[in-house]
Amino acid sequence: MDKLPRNERIATLVKLLSDSPGKIFTLGGFAEMFGSAKSTISEDIDIVGNILSKLDLGHVETISGALGGVRFIPSMSKDRAVRILEGLCAELCRKERLLPGGFIYMLDIIYNPEWIDDIGYIFAGHFFPKSIDYVVTVETKGIPLALATAKHLGVPLVIVRRNSEAAEGASVSINYVSGSSKKLQTMVLSLRSLKRNSRLLFVDDFMKGGGTAKGIAELAKEFECEVAGIGVLVETAEPNKKLVEEYFSLLLLQKVDEEAGVIDIKLSPNWSRI
Amino acid sequence: MDKLPRNERIATLVKLLSDSPGKIFTLGGFAEMFGSAKSTISEDIDIVGNILSKLDLGHVETISGALGGVRFIPSMSKDRAVRILEGLCAELCRKERLLPGGFIYMLDIIYNPEWIDDIGYIFAGHFFPKSIDYVVTVETKGIPLALATAKHLGVPLVIVRRNSEAAEGASVSINYVSGSSKKLQTMVLSLRSLKRNSRLLFVDDFMKGGGTAKGIAELAKEFECEVAGIGVLVETAEPNKKLVEEYFSLLLLQKVDEEAGVIDIKLSPNWSRI
Repeated sequence: MDKLPRNERIATLVKLLSDSPGKIFTLGGFAEMFGSAKSTISEDIDIVGNILSKLDLGHVETISGALGGVRFIPSMSKDRAVRILEGLCAELCRKERLLPGGFIYMLDIIYNPEWIDDIGYIFAGHFFPKSIDYVVTVETKGIPLALATAKHLGVPLVIVRRNSEAAEGASVSINYVSGSSKKLQTMVLSLRSLKRNSRLLFVDDFMKGGGTAKGIAELAKEFECEVAGIGVLVETAEPNKKLVEEYFSLLLLQKVDEEAGVIDIKLSPNWSRI
Repeated sequence: MDKLPRNERIATLVKLLSDSPGKIFTLGGFAEMFGSAKSTISEDIDIVGNILSKLDLGHVETISGALGGVRFIPSMSKDRAVRILEGLCAELCRKERLLPGGFIYMLDIIYNPEWIDDIGYIFAGHFFPKSIDYVVTVETKGIPLALATAKHLGVPLVIVRRNSEAAEGASVSINYVSGSSKKLQTMVLSLRSLKRNSRLLFVDDFMKGGGTAKGIAELAKEFECEVAGIGVLVETAEPNKKLVEEYFSLLLLQKVDEEAGVIDIKLSPNWSRI
């Protein structure tokens, strides 16, 4: 790259760092990329950190030592997260979303890159300190949310399937009981998917009884891995007692009154705890 | 936002524009956001356009008229795309990827946010001029790639399911014949998923006979929509004649020799055409 004015270096650094959260960049590497002195780059990084904080995207952390450098840690202020989630609640409570059987149409939200990116950012900020190695989800509806979270954490995504496929090689399969319907279900994961001793973040769009989350914890054990966090977009108020103890939900589905045409979704009580 | 120095305005604009491809921003809106004169913002935008081009991310387009403003158009130079795809080929041809039955293990690539982001960017750059309204894929393995493409095009994602679900409301279901295995398969899509008269981009990780792509075209008709583009990551050399005429593939799987432990994947011939 040709020698760039500070304007352009700063903009490039903001883009590079924020696009690769968690990744360690060395000042030497940047100095070479831009043909500038390390001291100049160091000043640039201060400005970049300041900009990323002002944009409420996170902060730049300096790691000292031989393997040191700088890395971007994603986070979002509680204020902004609450604003996003309140907007999401308002959208989800629109009565046109009511489906027969008391279901709520959510596909346009959970497949929309803009919503998903914001929600994934909230999860990434919350779970970054947990040193996550992989984000795990079960097909299908949670995949976009899990991918956005993985991207903002800078880790790979793993998708657990309902049936095994030849194209994925040898796999581990477990049976588990759904928390709400008490139906026996199957989960399959390719043996090559996870390195042993990894820390997993399970992400899903919806949690009722928590059976799927519990199933994931059992599957993780077969891979000698640990579920270090569970993040769900919407949890239901009933059953109050889930099959997993600790999880982080964004929204709480209180009630659906099909006859009256009322959907009652609000911010999860988690939001007063953090 | 407080009044910012040019450095910070530029970095903020690079981030805002590149995170929302295709979205029209008005100079007035930016002027208000930054508390600066429109003429100042206009100079900023020139610098931003220059930076985005230098980073090989795309360019900023000015739209005149009452509804005018500026928007970011994603694109990638052929050079950089070829470098990415050559790296991907080298990775995919590693013989450890061979699975019984001549399958190739690709999950670590097609679920990896970094690879997927680059590949989605190539698709977005290629298909942006086609005025796509939705990116469509069939569950499961193509979802991450389709989401990344949708994000970089600034449009929603639609996921076609294999079975209908109560939580998605009334749906359209079609049967189609797989191009390679000649098996009868089903595709289901919620009626609310697509606005009529939309232009769809079908994205998938793999194409053999092209049956799925043809199925999507038939499903699209039921929604009075049109498939305006088909993008696949890997197509197989055999069968040479696919069930769809026009598609854009990135890689060509020439041959898998299980006994000799050889996977032969190269850049698709598309790359000499563009």
